[in-house]
Parts: sequence; structure tokens; C-alpha cells
Amino acid sequence: MIKYRPPVRDMQFLLHELLNVESRFSAMPRHSDLDAGTVDQIIEAAGKFSRDVLQPLNLPGDREGCTRDANGSVRTPAGYPEAYRQYVEGGWPALTGPAEFGGQALPHVVGNAVTEMICACNQAWGAYPILSHGAGSCLFEHGNAELKRLYLPKLVSGAWSGTMCLTEAHCGSDLGLLGTRAELAADGSYRITGTKIFISGGDQDLTDNILHLVLARLPDAPAGSRGISLFLVPKFLVNERGEPVERNAVQCGALEEKMGIHGNATCVMNFDGARGWLVGERGRGLNAMFVMMNASRLVVATQTVGLSEFVYQQASGYAKERLQSRSASGPRLPAAAADPIIVHPDVRRMLLTQRAYTEGGRALTAWLAVLADHEQSDADETRRAAAARLIPLLTPIAKAFVSDNAFESTNLGMQVFGGHGYIVETGIEQYVRDARISSIYEGTNAIQALDLVNRKIAVDGGASLDLLLADIEGFVENSRAAPAMNEFSTPLLAAIDKARRGTSAILDGQRRDPEFAGAAAVHYTRVIGHLLFAYLWAQMARVALAKCGHDDDFYRTKLATARYYFARMHPEIDYQLALVLASPASLMEPADEAF
Amino acid sequence: MIKYRPPVRDMQFLLHELLNVESRFSAMPRHSDLDAGTVDQIIEAAGKFSRDVLQPLNLPGDREGCTRDANGSVRTPAGYPEAYRQYVEGGWPALTGPAEFGGQALPHVVGNAVTEMICACNQAWGAYPILSHGAGSCLFEHGNAELKRLYLPKLVSGAWSGTMCLTEAHCGSDLGLLGTRAELAADGSYRITGTKIFISGGDQDLTDNILHLVLARLPDAPAGSRGISLFLVPKFLVNERGEPVERNAVQCGALEEKMGIHGNATCVMNFDGARGWLVGERGRGLNAMFVMMNASRLVVATQTVGLSEFVYQQASGYAKERLQSRSASGPRLPAAAADPIIVHPDVRRMLLTQRAYTEGGRALTAWLAVLADHEQSDADETRRAAAARLIPLLTPIAKAFVSDNAFESTNLGMQVFGGHGYIVETGIEQYVRDARISSIYEGTNAIQALDLVNRKIAVDGGASLDLLLADIEGFVENSRAAPAMNEFSTPLLAAIDKARRGTSAILDGQRRDPEFAGAAAVHYTRVIGHLLFAYLWAQMARVALAKCGHDDDFYRTKLATARYYFARMHPEIDYQLALVLASPASLMEPADEAF
Repeated sequence: MIKYRPPVRDMQFLLHELLNVESRFSAMPRHSDLDAGTVDQIIEAAGKFSRDVLQPLNLPGDREGCTRDANGSVRTPAGYPEAYRQYVEGGWPALTGPAEFGGQALPHVVGNAVTEMICACNQAWGAYPILSHGAGSCLFEHGNAELKRLYLPKLVSGAWSGTMCLTEAHCGSDLGLLGTRAELAADGSYRITGTKIFISGGDQDLTDNILHLVLARLPDAPAGSRGISLFLVPKFLVNERGEPVERNAVQCGALEEKMGIHGNATCVMNFDGARGWLVGERGRGLNAMFVMMNASRLVVATQTVGLSEFVYQQASGYAKERLQSRSASGPRLPAAAADPIIVHPDVRRMLLTQRAYTEGGRALTAWLAVLADHEQSDADETRRAAAARLIPLLTPIAKAFVSDNAFESTNLGMQVFGGHGYIVETGIEQYVRDARISSIYEGTNAIQALDLVNRKIAVDGGASLDLLLADIEGFVENSRAAPAMNEFSTPLLAAIDKARRGTSAILDGQRRDPEFAGAAAVHYTRVIGHLLFAYLWAQMARVALAKCGHDDDFYRTKLATARYYFARMHPEIDYQLALVLASPASLMEPADEAF
Repeated sequence: MIKYRPPVRDMQFLLHELLNVESRFSAMPRHSDLDAGTVDQIIEAAGKFSRDVLQPLNLPGDREGCTRDANGSVRTPAGYPEAYRQYVEGGWPALTGPAEFGGQALPHVVGNAVTEMICACNQAWGAYPILSHGAGSCLFEHGNAELKRLYLPKLVSGAWSGTMCLTEAHCGSDLGLLGTRAELAADGSYRITGTKIFISGGDQDLTDNILHLVLARLPDAPAGSRGISLFLVPKFLVNERGEPVERNAVQCGALEEKMGIHGNATCVMNFDGARGWLVGERGRGLNAMFVMMNASRLVVATQTVGLSEFVYQQASGYAKERLQSRSASGPRLPAAAADPIIVHPDVRRMLLTQRAYTEGGRALTAWLAVLADHEQSDADETRRAAAARLIPLLTPIAKAFVSDNAFESTNLGMQVFGGHGYIVETGIEQYVRDARISSIYEGTNAIQALDLVNRKIAVDGGASLDLLLADIEGFVENSRAAPAMNEFSTPLLAAIDKARRGTSAILDGQRRDPEFAGAAAVHYTRVIGHLLFAYLWAQMARVALAKCGHDDDFYRTKLATARYYFARMHPEIDYQLALVLASPASLMEPADEAF
């Protein structure tokens, strides 16, 4: 297995050349002092940590998995706790955390790059701190002052972790069905009773305390999702000074055996009248939890970019070394017994597809992360509002499109290895297994698609999307001066039209047929995903074109990948649009019993 | 986990109503006495055996895997040997074997149905007898009388097994590179020396002897694939009466740990001057081995149809029981907390896609199998020749198209289960892992695609395909009398045109650019795959339309699935055709070092 090469150059390209984060930071009082050199240093250090500390634990951690003793205490794979100690010592958990609770308050766009590299080297390990980060954001947004004072500093520093307790055996996508109960106690706290499943990091041996964010229903709550409240339930109850003093009545009842991410403990959590405290308002639990869910959805996209990058590095390395058959254009290495398989067009297809998906996904997640910085920190209210409007629209697309692509991408990497990719030793098959969860957790990709069509498009008649389309049209207009941009602008302009046609079809179709949007959703998500990729690849091509004279291989390769994307990947948009426009009749025709 | 329901009804439909095997058999002296009742009995018995004996071993076998002791002896999972004993006792290995060596000489189209059900319930177990069957065919075709006398009866009865020893560490797709040596000994046998990898069933505890078919190179052999000969190397040497008497110098040196098919022993095999006997002519080893390889390629398609079917049954069962959210058309079960997820169009999309892939793949493999019967047994030379021409054309398409579809299909099944599909307990994730090998082994799907464009299309300028296209045109012409067939005939006719355009593009493109065919191959394979599926689904629709008046749910569902295929799956053909027609320039532009 090749040692991970942190994609620092590509990250610098995105931050400094594509997104121009320095000029953006100058409009954000919190970040206006941050210079490019500091950003680069952080990224380089995170890459080094991921490569040197996390990568060596990944395969052994997959083989060992997590174990649970009779008391419900979970042990993570060998090396995980020590790596976590180093992670905390390095100050990494606090990177983007709020300054008033000990955080370094650095921009999300920097934190996003760090997350990618961590997950590239060890997704199972990375999920522990990532969830804590999401729990911290949720508590920061919705917790009262006392909860923040007691818990947030430890969550921000990484001394304690956080979990997200939503799913129950009979409810996953439909949280309105959840049955975990919360009852008000005399002291103003609540007693939480119920069983949650699929709780990542529900127990572990990395931190001294674990803060569970639990969705539960109060006795007088209405049925459905409006009756759900959110509670903070610590593993250890704390005293006034925030010191753990007493075990709470919450325990890991079982560990799930899974296809992948074996190093991450997926727990059944039993709450037996555990003490908890209300986070946010009664009955507004889902609303509060959405802070964490939305953060997690973006992180899934980022995570899978990391997996794709890692597998691409392995597969491209193998393709340059593995000698097998001759180039159709004549021997490339006449003295050797065969040519490296990278000469074969289909091997190049697999590698270029991986690269275009990976770099496109990286650009999309970086863009979303910098939008989060605008929303949170921009001095200009108009830009804050624009970002706040765009993020909810882009989040489900990023989660679904990027994670589906990543699963394809890791599978293409395996295919480059042939039989050698199917055996455990090479380490590729683990990435395929690990990547597979991404289309499922944090809301399946079909749920993301429904979120997009119902809550982001239908809700405002496509108005938010129209604002984005106008931006993209502006970009195309601006590019007219450069004739070399035509090859990218032309299909991009066509993609805008396709996005409009898809959107109209859904808005119109929905009026005629209640099943139309549900049938079109996953296909529409890929249409808009390809629109976003076309926009990002065209922007990257514009930067690369301007720099190509500098005779730098990086820009030449970027341009070649952009060309490949438009020539051989972007055409999927037409196929998916055809399915958006298709009637749902053939889907709905067979009787349920026919299945 | 739901108990497997053998798809007997669908198999009967294919055999008796679509392919009309009885009328075909009447033209085959060997099978002319075979009646529909006997065929159905065999299929039912095989389904029962698969469900009752093999399915219970599948999950435990995946967990336990195979083990190897210090002497290189391999132990298969608990229950495997006993199941194999029952299999042999039931006479199953001999089903289609040659009568003169103890076989029942039943038609391949029947054997194909049996294979599907075995693999549906236990792919890892099924691979042992399947490979033996391929080895038997190879020996039957190319072995001399003495080899057949000594070994074939035991191979046919299943008392002994066979393996296929091709791959070496440095050669997989490019067998011309292989280095295993064979030297003529004084007694006319050969001494085989070398190491083979990825040998399925290289050692096991199911049979008393194992017959390795080994590709090796004689000392005076030319370089490349023309210098390769084929040898039979038994694990135990036999005396004149064919009784094992002495251990041969061949041993399993290691077992591979793999992503899936854990119950199937994937061995590194060391040949240390092992005694072997030439099979076929010197230097024609690949030619002889192709009998086994082609048989195996068809079997891979059949195998993956089985996996798809199994997962579809599980997923559709789950979708009808799992209550989550409400139908967009209004509550289906108002008294329950939610509706079954089968009401959601995207769940139906996933299930219908699985069903159309599975039933289409089953039809394709049954067609190929009955062509094999024509080739082998038809009294009419013209039909024998037509089948002999069609089989090599269809084989790579069936292998690649059906196995790629099956991987997608098993993944869709997992997606229906959501998080419950990712955990081991449900049994679905094993099927995804098991299915993943199918795009790799017996020649990767890219190798299949190159075989199709180079050796089946370019070699005769598309003449063999033209014969097939003429048959399909004939079918469309014949269907004109039935206006209800228009919805199927129209896209089928268009697909013929698309196949022609793709073929011309490859034939022309190849003259201009040596990389054209290699770039187009995988896309072209999917174009032709969809042409074949359109042909088969249109034929199935015609049968179903004729029977729909009978008010039988089976035909209504068949018709609905055909409609779904044409409306929402067949459009992929346009997307893939666009990629066939695209220039390879963007694939070849980046320098090798850019990767």
C-alpha cells in the first residue's frame, strides 16, 4: 500500500486560486487576520498527522473492530485511543470551535480540508471527532447558557465526545415515529427512557465522557415529528464545576457487526430513565437536531472525497507499475515484457473518472464550507443571507451526489487492481466497504433527494435555485471574453437549461400527479449535481487556462481533467434528465403484492 | 432473513413459453424424449436442495471462511462437505455430463437453472462444483482417450473436482506472460514447476482428489500466448485403474483473504515438479482452456442472476413490511403509524430495477444455454452452426452486462434496507461483497468488452452481429400484427439502429485511431447488452400479452416489468451510445505521469 500523499496542492488551488479565500476572509472580522501561509501550514500539518498517525491504524482497525464487555464498555481498536490523545494534544478538535469556549475559531473551509484528510486515512476513526464537532455546533446554537458553560468547553477541546441519537428499531427515515420518552423530573431535568440503534460512538474508550444528544417525546407531545424534543444526556453526570461525578443510566447494549467502518462503534443504546436536559425548545427537537444533521451531511460528502482520493492514489500508482499487455498504439516499454496498464484507454477512463469525481467533490465541499464561513462570519448582511439561502439547497445535493460518486469511484479503483483489489491485503476492498455506508447514513440518498425536491425546490417554486442559476449565467457571460472557455461554457449553459427543464417538470408534474416528485427526485439530484460539477469544473478550467502559460503540470492536468469531465462524464445529465421527465406510471403500475 | 423462494414459475415461463424448449428438444436426438414434466421436476428438486441444504450454510460459511493447516490442507466451512456429499448422492454433478462417462446428458438449459438456484443460496459453495463442471467439459473436448478414461468418470460424478490454474502473480489479464514451466519426463508425462495464484478450490475437503488444469510453458515454447500448453495435474496420482495412489508435488501454499465468497478457498498453488499430462496439443493450451473459460463466463452471468434474485426477494419482502412515512397519494394504511415503504416511488424504482435486471439476465442466460444445447445436440447442421456463431458473440456481453447489473442490483437491495442492510445480521451485505467478484473473475468486464469489440466484432466486420440484428428485425416485423406490441417494438427497432451506429463507429474509428475501440468497448458492451435486454423483454411482453386475458397475475407483472424496463432503464442505451461515439482524445490527453 502506498503512503497517502495529502492533496495539499489541490487544496491550495481551491482555497487560494478558485475560491480566493483571503479576499473573502478580509470581509469577515473574525478571520481578517488569517493569512494564506497559516492556512497552508494547518493543512500540511493535518495531512502529516493523517498520514503518519491515522493511516497505519486503518487496516488493523478494520480487522480488529470494536469490542464490548459485559458492562457495556466499548473498546476501540488498538492505537485508536493513543491517536485520539495526540489529536487532542495537537488542538485539532478545537480548530473551528467558538473562541468563547476555547475554540480557535478558524474558518470552516480550513476545517473541511482537515476532515477530508483524516477520513481519507481512517474513516472509522475520523467519525468519532466529527460527530463530536456536530454535537458541539448543535449545543452552541440551541443549548442554554448553563448547558454551554458545563459541557461546551470539553466538547470543543475534544476531551469529551458527542453522539447523535435519532434512530430506533422501527424508525429511521421517518423520525416522527420515534418512541423514546422524556419525563420532567422535580429538579427540572428529564428522565429519558428508550432504545436507540445505529449510534456511532455510543460508547468508546477515547474520551472520559460522552454527551448524547437524544430525540425523545414528552408525555403531552403530539404525534409525529412536531412532538419531538431534544435532550442532552451525558454518560457521566457532572457537578456544578462540570466535573464528572456519577454514571448516568445509559449504556451500550450491543454492537452492530457491519459491512465496513469496523473501527467505529455502532451501538444499541439503552436509556433507562437516564437524566437529560432539554436542548432548545420543547417540540422543536428536530429543528435543533438539524444543525447537527446538516453539518453531518456536508461532512459525509467531505469524508467520501477523502476515500476517493485515497483509492485514486493507490489505483493510479498500481496502474503505472503493473505490466500487462501492450498499448494499442504500439509498445510503450519495448524492452519490458508488457506495458504498464495505464496505457489502456479503459484503465485511463477509470482513473480519470475517479479524479474528476474526487476533485469536483473537493471543490463542491470547499465551496459549501466557505459559504458556511460567509453565513457565520461575513460582515455584509447580504452575503450572509445569500449564503444562508444557498447552503440548504446545496447540502442534500453534495451529500447524495458526492457519496454516490465516491462509491463508484472506490469500485473503479478496485477494478483497476483486478483480482488484487478483491483481496484484503491490498487495502482497497476496505475502502469500498467503508464508502458504502455513505449513501445510507445521515439520511439515505433518496431522503436527500426528497429533501431537495420537496423542501428546497417545491417550497419556493425553485426561487433559490434560480438565484444560483443566475450566478452561473453571470459566470458564463463573464467567460465570453476568453474564446478558450467556449468548450466549457457551452455545455455549462446547456446544463442551466437542463436544470430549468427538470425543475419545471417537477413543479408542473407535482400538480398533476402526487408521485411525480418522488419518482423524479434521485434523477433530478444527479441533474443538479452535474450542473454544479459543470460550474465548478468550468471555473477550475478558467483558472487553469490563465495559468497554463506558466508551464506547470498541475494546471495542464487540471485542464485535461476538466475536458475529460465534460466530454465523457457530464453527458450523464441528459440520461438523468430523461428520467426526471419520464412519467411515473411504470413505477406505480404494479400492485404492491406483485413484488 | 426470508427463506429463498426458488423462481420456478419464472423458469418455467422462460423454458416452456419463451424458449419453447420442448419443440427445440424434439430436434435434438439426445433430448427428444425429455418432457416438460421431467424438466420441471428437476428444477423443483434443485430449488428445494438449494433452499434447504445450501441457504442455511451461507451466512455461517461467510463468517467462518476457509482455513489451511501447516501441510497445506484446506478445510471448508462447517457443513460444506456434508452438503457436497448430498449433492453428489443426488446425482447433481452429473446432470449435464456426457452419458459415456456416467453423465445424465440433460440439456444445458436445465443445468443453467440449477446453477442459478445453487448460487442464489450459496455462491461460495456453488463455485466448487461449477469449476469441476468446466474442467470436465475441457477434458471431454481436448483430453485424449486415456485421460478421459482415467479421470472423466470421477469428474462427472462429482467424486473428484477440477480447478482452473491460469493466473500468476505477474500475469492475470495477459496470460502470455506466464512463467510456469513444464518439462517432458522419460515416461511421457511432464514435470510442472511454478506458482499459480487466485486458484478457486485449489485445495478443499469436499472431494478425494482434485484435478488441476494448469497452463504452463514448455522449454522450447515461443514467448507469448502461443507458447502455452495445458496440463492435467492431479492432487493424487492414480494407477491404471484410476485409483489414487500417491500424493503429487502440488500444494496450497496460502489462502487469500477476500472481500467476499469467504467459503470458497482461493489458493496460492505451488507446483514443485508435479507430474502432469498434456491436454490437447502443445502450444494450444489457451485454446483448450477457452472451453473452460467460456463455460465459466456464462456461469458467472447465471450466478449473479441468482444473487440478484435472492436479494430482490429479501428487499421486496422488507419493503412490504417496513412501515415508514406516508404515501404521497394519501395514507395506504390509515390505521397504522405509517405506510409500508413499498408505496414510495423510489423504493419501487429500486425493486423494479432489480427485477428487470434479474429476469432479463435470467432470460439471457437461458437463451445462451439453449443455444449451447443446439450447438451440441441439434440434428440440423444449420442450427448447430448458427448457435456456434452466436454463442461467442453473446458470451462476453452476458458475462459483463449481467454481472455489472447484478452488483448494482444487490446494492439497490441493500439501499432498500437502509442501515439495516449495512449490518451483517440481515445477510444483504454479504451478497454485495460476494457479487463484487463477478466483474473481476473469469476475465474482468473490461476484458470481456475488449473480447467483444476485437474478437467478435472487428474480426468479421460485425457480420455475426448483423445476423443477430436481422433476427431481431424479423421479430419486430412479426410483431406488427399486434398493435399492443408497438410500445415494445418501437424502442427495440431504435435499439437495432443504435447498435448499428455503435458498431460502425467502432469499425470506422479503429481505422483512424488505434485507441478508439479500447475507449469505446465498455460502453459498446452496455449498448449491445441493452439491445439484447430490449429484445428479450419485448419477446417476454409478447408472450405475456397473449396470456393476459387469462387473468393471471404472473403475466400482468411480467408486462409491467417490461414496461418499466423500456420506460426507465432502456434509456441508458443513448447515454452509453454517446460515449461509444465520443472521441478518445480526452482519455489519452493526460501524460502517464499526470496520474
